[in-house]
Amino acid sequence: MTVYLVGAGPGDPDLLTVKAAGLLARADVVVHDRLADPAIVKLARPEAELIDVGKRPSRPLPQATINALLVHLGRSGRTVVRLKGGDPFVFGRGGEEAMALLDAGVPFEVVPGVTSAVAVPACAGVPVTHRGLSAAVTVVTGHRRVGEEADTDWEALARVGGTLVILMGVGQRAYIAERLRAGGLASDTPVCAVMNGTRPGQRTIRTSLERLGETPIEPPATIVIGAVAGLDLLQTTDGDGAAEGADHTTGPARP
Amino acid sequence: MTVYLVGAGPGDPDLLTVKAAGLLARADVVVHDRLADPAIVKLARPEAELIDVGKRPSRPLPQATINALLVHLGRSGRTVVRLKGGDPFVFGRGGEEAMALLDAGVPFEVVPGVTSAVAVPACAGVPVTHRGLSAAVTVVTGHRRVGEEADTDWEALARVGGTLVILMGVGQRAYIAERLRAGGLASDTPVCAVMNGTRPGQRTIRTSLERLGETPIEPPATIVIGAVAGLDLLQTTDGDGAAEGADHTTGPARP
Repeated sequence: MTVYLVGAGPGDPDLLTVKAAGLLARADVVVHDRLADPAIVKLARPEAELIDVGKRPSRPLPQATINALLVHLGRSGRTVVRLKGGDPFVFGRGGEEAMALLDAGVPFEVVPGVTSAVAVPACAGVPVTHRGLSAAVTVVTGHRRVGEEADTDWEALARVGGTLVILMGVGQRAYIAERLRAGGLASDTPVCAVMNGTRPGQRTIRTSLERLGETPIEPPATIVIGAVAGLDLLQTTDGDGAAEGADHTTGPARP
Repeated sequence: MTVYLVGAGPGDPDLLTVKAAGLLARADVVVHDRLADPAIVKLARPEAELIDVGKRPSRPLPQATINALLVHLGRSGRTVVRLKGGDPFVFGRGGEEAMALLDAGVPFEVVPGVTSAVAVPACAGVPVTHRGLSAAVTVVTGHRRVGEEADTDWEALARVGGTLVILMGVGQRAYIAERLRAGGLASDTPVCAVMNGTRPGQRTIRTSLERLGETPIEPPATIVIGAVAGLDLLQTTDGDGAAEGADHTTGPARP
């Protein structure tokens, strides 16, 4: 009996790891959330039990319940795959699930995945690091859990000056932009927001830190702030800022 | 004709993406560096031409030469896989290669990979983010290219206070620790260094920011600094700090 905490990658089934695909093909139970693309869950064998614990607003499933479910399933002797979007340890709460299994004495294994924080910008032509432009990348959530965690020191992040990748920050984007500017980040710092990254319906919007608050962005979106956000290595973006498909040969993309 | 810029992941061939494995199996040419595990290169079909451009000290191959090689190969009409350790855009210089191909009009595609910055700590039982301990993770290189890039603002990173993942920082670790402490990071901040991460010979050393400079660490190593570095979710570390293999059931691992 083993529970596998598996990163499903950013959405494209081809970006699963070989190990994740193999585990899905032999799992008895797959516990997945709403971040996992439906096409990925379909890679499980037909006999597998599928349990959707997606934390939709209309049907919240507390983390403690998910933890208890994993412990219960792990003790059943079946092969359990806990499938999580991106990587289990990049804001995936995989650490909490691992601790619950550890405390319960249920063997488990962590299978890293391609993190959306890197892959989603890449699919929009944005390298999160680039020689001469960015020698550091910070991944941070924009969503604040009231009363649970101290607010992010955005002014300090502004001083770090590398690439900022903000997950779950759409609703707070005006506030974040204001604090980054207060911290000294230039108003014309390039910003790239990728909606539905690596999925059908992917859209990219280019803007600046100054205009970020008023730029129409819908969740789920990955927001990249920094010089690299001005790059478009895949030439995916047309004049009005909407993605028009990748045409790699139309010309240079220099900031 | 297409050049694929492919992330090979942290070393374990099972952590290749499904897409990367499929591309290797049909590539005519594989251009790889020394970060790619030999077992990964062997996934290429027997007829494939293998070109090692690994930047070993004894045989440096300038990036411009690699770029020109990729353009040349791309124009030959063959299917070219440029295999890079980790993810192509996380300090992989994939952006530079993409720009060279773009400028030359050679079609290319970027295939994200599992980044070592996340997967190597995970394989040592360290989640780079964890609720209540870290709401941000910064990946940064410790290696400075003299005259090319401004030095990292380590004091600002100390203020950010999330998780720091330092790549190529072994030689600079005393200097980095000193500047982080100058920036206000506590002397007893946990540090975890993982050598040969995800490979045979993986070793984990636990220390503190205060003792980092004098802790024996050999490259290649990934250094994690922050509260999460005090976690050991896989119970991999024995009393003297050396990895003894994963035994997930020996007890809780709380900071």
